[in-house]
Amino acid sequence: MPNLLSVGSIGIDSVSTPFGRANKVVGGSGSYSAIAASFFVPTALVSMVGKDFSKKHMEVFEKQGIDTSGIEVHPSKKTMVWRAHYGYDINDAKTDAIKLNAYADFVPTLSERHARIPFLFLANSDPEQQLSVLKQMARKPRLSVCDTMNFYIKKNPAKVREMVRSADIGLMNDAEARMLFKTTNLVKCAKEILKLNSKYAIIKKGENGVVLFSDNNSYFALPGYALENIKDPTGCGDAFAGAFLGFLAQSMNFDESNIRRALVTASAVASFNAEDFSFNRLLSLTQTEIRQRVREFRKIVLF
Amino acid sequence: MPNLLSVGSIGIDSVSTPFGRANKVVGGSGSYSAIAASFFVPTALVSMVGKDFSKKHMEVFEKQGIDTSGIEVHPSKKTMVWRAHYGYDINDAKTDAIKLNAYADFVPTLSERHARIPFLFLANSDPEQQLSVLKQMARKPRLSVCDTMNFYIKKNPAKVREMVRSADIGLMNDAEARMLFKTTNLVKCAKEILKLNSKYAIIKKGENGVVLFSDNNSYFALPGYALENIKDPTGCGDAFAGAFLGFLAQSMNFDESNIRRALVTASAVASFNAEDFSFNRLLSLTQTEIRQRVREFRKIVLF
Repeated sequence: MPNLLSVGSIGIDSVSTPFGRANKVVGGSGSYSAIAASFFVPTALVSMVGKDFSKKHMEVFEKQGIDTSGIEVHPSKKTMVWRAHYGYDINDAKTDAIKLNAYADFVPTLSERHARIPFLFLANSDPEQQLSVLKQMARKPRLSVCDTMNFYIKKNPAKVREMVRSADIGLMNDAEARMLFKTTNLVKCAKEILKLNSKYAIIKKGENGVVLFSDNNSYFALPGYALENIKDPTGCGDAFAGAFLGFLAQSMNFDESNIRRALVTASAVASFNAEDFSFNRLLSLTQTEIRQRVREFRKIVLF
Repeated sequence: MPNLLSVGSIGIDSVSTPFGRANKVVGGSGSYSAIAASFFVPTALVSMVGKDFSKKHMEVFEKQGIDTSGIEVHPSKKTMVWRAHYGYDINDAKTDAIKLNAYADFVPTLSERHARIPFLFLANSDPEQQLSVLKQMARKPRLSVCDTMNFYIKKNPAKVREMVRSADIGLMNDAEARMLFKTTNLVKCAKEILKLNSKYAIIKKGENGVVLFSDNNSYFALPGYALENIKDPTGCGDAFAGAFLGFLAQSMNFDESNIRRALVTASAVASFNAEDFSFNRLLSLTQTEIRQRVREFRKIVLF
């Protein structure tokens, strides 16, 4: 029985960075988050692909022990396609083309079994869709985490705020937080997140790490892990989110001290993800390597 | 006898930010760095002002115990003037006008006494001028730190690199490092700095903190201190540099562990500086407040 449910996209990505390119590889927020979560607890992925999605593609998830029974296959449309490139500012993906294809029709319908999974990650998607998934849960999840992105904030900021209010923790990056709350100051953004019924405000800052504000006025900041050789940052935010929730699902402790450890572990997993194209690095990643990088983080911040 | 010499500009600044404005207040990299350093060791400031620079202005330095005997007064020209504004992206000053005035003619000539000061800070300036000051020192300083800025990197990158090679530690921010070494990757930038005969590469990242790379492959990262109310970030980089060198001059220990502590202390002082316009906050700052914020940093990074 899976312990963590990730609902998000599966796509076919073609990405070029100054350090190479990946052509037609599996991507999508659901893929990255589920693979990252699977290091910690049995994970199920709910998504929709097209008729072109091969058995070989599906096996990637199955090899990670991911429950793929919730991945619907569209009878006529193709899988979502994303083409993008990164310039020397590796933090900023430039989308060249996006075709939602099968994913455009995706209305997630949870099976009875999936509706009982205690840990829920809602990868970035239309907030209406995210809210509908949350409503389908047979009981309130032990912990629900949602992600969002600039596209939906521009389109319907009120609905995104409603989603953040409905989930236990709403993840966003600094640019998204600034856009959603109309202030550049991240402390003010965090206070707005906390007002949305959240015990924790977590703002991701890409290569500059992550910050956590909690409702008892405590503040935690973790710098980014400095990589000399970044190949492809695609999916790092999704891998971060999946590992974060996976760690919490495994440890079953939502104290601030454990939330901090979850953020460090999530940062470690996300940093590995950037070391290769697609989620290739995650496929060879070991528990020992994750623990080793967490130990490195301890040395990095020591004074 | 001063223990730290800061050579840099004194200007009259008019700055507006989304949170207010300061009109014709004392600024300049020499001012900020000397005031910040003066919290730790007796400090001398070498600079040039114009005939309009009032006694009241000069008293600000004297009240901090700063040796002002090296501040020349130009017989006919006015003090340097800088007018700038910040938008909601508070990290990015937009210069509306700069008139070097008296400072354009400034060729620092160190007194015999100043040439013997063991700790030297060369605030951002023309690298030729910085190199000439270093040559005037009666003996090699115990520690010399130089700063730079985009203007000089664009104008003469080879000379800036020569300055970084000549000083013990060359400070720069992330954008400057990327410009100087033509790569966005900060680890690669740091390696280039280390190749320039530096034991430590320190890259300032504004509100995202600071990173330190040392020649034994050790890496330290400190996140920024999250301020909810930033009034004016002008001079934070200079205050950071002055406090950093001041701390090292006071403690006389250049081990990496103490360099890390110096960076935390410098970050604390710089964060206070942003809390008010000009260097007003530094004028009321106490040792207790600095120590208190360093302790806060320990809690912020704890996991």
